[in-house]
Parts: sequence; C-alpha cells; structure tokens
Amino acid sequence: MSKSLSGVIALTFDVFGTVTDWRGSIIAEMEGFGKEKGISRDWAGFADSWRGGYRPSMDRVRRGDLPWTNIDALHRVILEQLLVEFQLPGLSDEQKDHLNRVWHRLMPWPDSVQGLTRLKKRYIIATLSNGNMALLVNMGKNAGLPWDCVLSGELFKHYKRDPEVYRGAVALLGLRPEQVMMVAAHKDDLQAAQRTGMRTGFVSRPREFGPGRPVDATPAPSFDVVAMDFLDLADKLGA
Amino acid sequence: MSKSLSGVIALTFDVFGTVTDWRGSIIAEMEGFGKEKGISRDWAGFADSWRGGYRPSMDRVRRGDLPWTNIDALHRVILEQLLVEFQLPGLSDEQKDHLNRVWHRLMPWPDSVQGLTRLKKRYIIATLSNGNMALLVNMGKNAGLPWDCVLSGELFKHYKRDPEVYRGAVALLGLRPEQVMMVAAHKDDLQAAQRTGMRTGFVSRPREFGPGRPVDATPAPSFDVVAMDFLDLADKLGA
Repeated sequence: MSKSLSGVIALTFDVFGTVTDWRGSIIAEMEGFGKEKGISRDWAGFADSWRGGYRPSMDRVRRGDLPWTNIDALHRVILEQLLVEFQLPGLSDEQKDHLNRVWHRLMPWPDSVQGLTRLKKRYIIATLSNGNMALLVNMGKNAGLPWDCVLSGELFKHYKRDPEVYRGAVALLGLRPEQVMMVAAHKDDLQAAQRTGMRTGFVSRPREFGPGRPVDATPAPSFDVVAMDFLDLADKLGA
Repeated sequence: MSKSLSGVIALTFDVFGTVTDWRGSIIAEMEGFGKEKGISRDWAGFADSWRGGYRPSMDRVRRGDLPWTNIDALHRVILEQLLVEFQLPGLSDEQKDHLNRVWHRLMPWPDSVQGLTRLKKRYIIATLSNGNMALLVNMGKNAGLPWDCVLSGELFKHYKRDPEVYRGAVALLGLRPEQVMMVAAHKDDLQAAQRTGMRTGFVSRPREFGPGRPVDATPAPSFDVVAMDFLDLADKLGA
C-alpha cells in the first residue's frame, strides 16, 4: 500500500451500482410482481427507465428548480409515469409505496458483504449515497451490509456531485479529506470527491447496466486505488 | 407485548449513561494516565466534574449564547479548566486531544452489546445522542456496538431535550413518531421524546453516577416499557 494511503481512516461508499445491483434486483422483483399478477412486460426496460429518470430529477433539485426532495419522493414521481408507460393500472397507494420501496430492498453484488466485512476490520466504513437515510438504513438491514455509519446527501440537502456532500461527510467523521477514501464504480463521483481533497477507490462493476451494455470501466490515472471488486479492494487496502 | 408496542419498528438510544458507563470508563483511563505519569488525583472527582460541566455548556448552546458547538469542542473547553483545577500542567495539544477523546472510547455496560445484538434482530437500532457523529462512530467501533445507524443532535444542530432532535430522527428514519421508541436511563430525555409522540423505554442504570450516589430510577407511569437492563428490554420487546 502506498504511503499516501496509509493515512486513510474511513471509506465512504457509493451504493447504487457500487454496493448493490439495482438493475438485477428490480428486474427480479418485477418478474415476481408480474407472475403474481399474471402479466408480462419488459422488466429490464422498466428498471432502466426508472434509473434513467433519476439523474434528471436530481438535477432539477441541484439546479434549484425543485426544493429539497429526497430520493424516495423522486423515485415515486418517476414510478407514476412508468405505471402509465408500461400499462400497469389499478394499483393502490399502498401497493405503489411497496413497489417504490424496492430501492430499499436492493441486493448486494456477490462480493459486497464479504468485502465490507473485511474492510470494516481496518477502516470505518460508511455509505455516502444520494439515497435517503431511511432507504439506506432499510437496505443495510435487509442486505446485511455491516456499515459503521450511514451517511447520505439528505443530511446536507445536496446531491452528489455537489462538493457539500463530500465535505459534509468528512466533517461529520471528524477527519481531514485525505483521511477519507470515496469508493465508487462511477468516475464522476470519484472525480468530484477528489476535487474536495478526498482519496479515491475505483471499483469496476461491468454488469451494472446489464449484459451488452458496456460501462466506462477505464479508471482515471489519478485514482488512488483501482479494484476489480470489494475483495480485491480489501486486498489492496491491506484489510 | 402490548398492542401499542407491536407497531414499533425502530429503537433510538441515549448513549452516555444508558449504553456506556462514562464514569467508570473515565476513571479507568485516568488511573492509567496517572500511573504512567506517576501522579495520583481524585479521578472519580475528575470524571464527575467533566460530566458536570456538560449540561451547562450545552444549555449555553441551546439558549443561543453560543453558536452551534459540538460535544468534542465543549468537552475540550471543560477539560482545559479541569487540567488547571486538578493541577495537571504541561500537556501538549496532541495529548489533550487524545485525553479529550476518552469520550470516544467509553466502555459499554456489561449487558449492552448482547442486548443490542438481540434487539437488532427485530428492530432498527440507532443512537440518538448529544454526542457528535465522529464520537459516536468511533465509540461504536471501539466498543462493538452493532448500530444500524448513528444519529446525533449534531445532524439537527440541536441538543436533546429540544424537540427538533426527536422529530429529526423520526423523519430521517422515514417513520411516524409512534413507530419509534426512545430508550434512555434518564426520565427527562424520555419525557421530551414522549411530547413528540414517540414511544418510551426506561432502562435503569443505578450505578451511572457511582456507588452511594442514588439516581432517580423511578420510572414515570407513562413510560411504555420499564426494564432493568438491555437483556430485560429485549425480553420485554420480544427480541
């Protein structure tokens, strides 16, 4: 491990796509839903459209076009549109709420729990996600993610890649930026963290967007660590 | 378990005195410090004075006489006074910082970890403490407290017993007040929680202030659960 990494005390993790497989989880749950209702739809398309609506919704909040709105509420607005688009009428409010909380039930990648458990022995491990606190707490409990601490953009009323999120997390942990490493499968997340002085760990998640949908898995040369998965990250961070 | 308790989903815990033994921990650490330096002082008095300075300092923040100041910073101001009062000169800034962080290293009561581990199987378990986030995260890691989530007055820039703290925690958990139970060894903490609609669990900690210093261990009749310790609490909450 390089000298610049020996001072790292805490790791903060992006969650959607980096720790959990949002696409596979939503497809699996919607297939169950379809079977129960006796209907069939393009559930992969459904998952992609739901995720696709997320960035533009957040950007409306980031630009100030919308007041602070958490991810549960943004997901719910997108869901209402999808229910029309995918012709899924007649759901009660309660059923829609349950469906919307599929994001609280996302399943981890196969290496996530084991990797986090190893990393936790040496480092403070925390989420640093755009998911709201309730979503992250429920997800952690459901998936058995052994967080020391749950941190969310919701605490700062900012979404990543706003610098307030990274700075806020470092401050709450009582550390200096170079003592905290942001871990993510997304380059722009890491680059934003890096601009605030944090260390960066890139983990490649080539299947995040599904088969045949290549992701940009070329890490920037400036990233401090590049790993194939969380076990490889634990190896490279001496945990 | 009564019907009103079957809807409880999350438990939020007071920490200083309820989960951890601040007095015994500080005395033990200061005795080690004294042995190392070859000096002897009234370390129990030292612990009591440190804790004694805490409420007045917080009240200055609560009244608005001081801008928001976290507990680490308040503890440090009190420590400076104690170093004079107990004639402990010549410490470097680094040594004072280390000493001040004894509050990050408080040890749990003997039943705390086992009780929390049981309660965690059935409930979301979170801190809800005046301790700052870094203090609570470090304490959890050091003492092996299996929190699902760390919540602190620092997130709301208010100290208990301000209602903002209780309401803020319930909102971040995405729950209704009656779905969250505040657990504490201090009646006024529970009464403040109760005024916001939360459920209440009183745990008696008769040794919090040391031998021969009786605490008010008579629960108010309005508390939902009264327990002797965390194992008894787990029994009574069906965990």
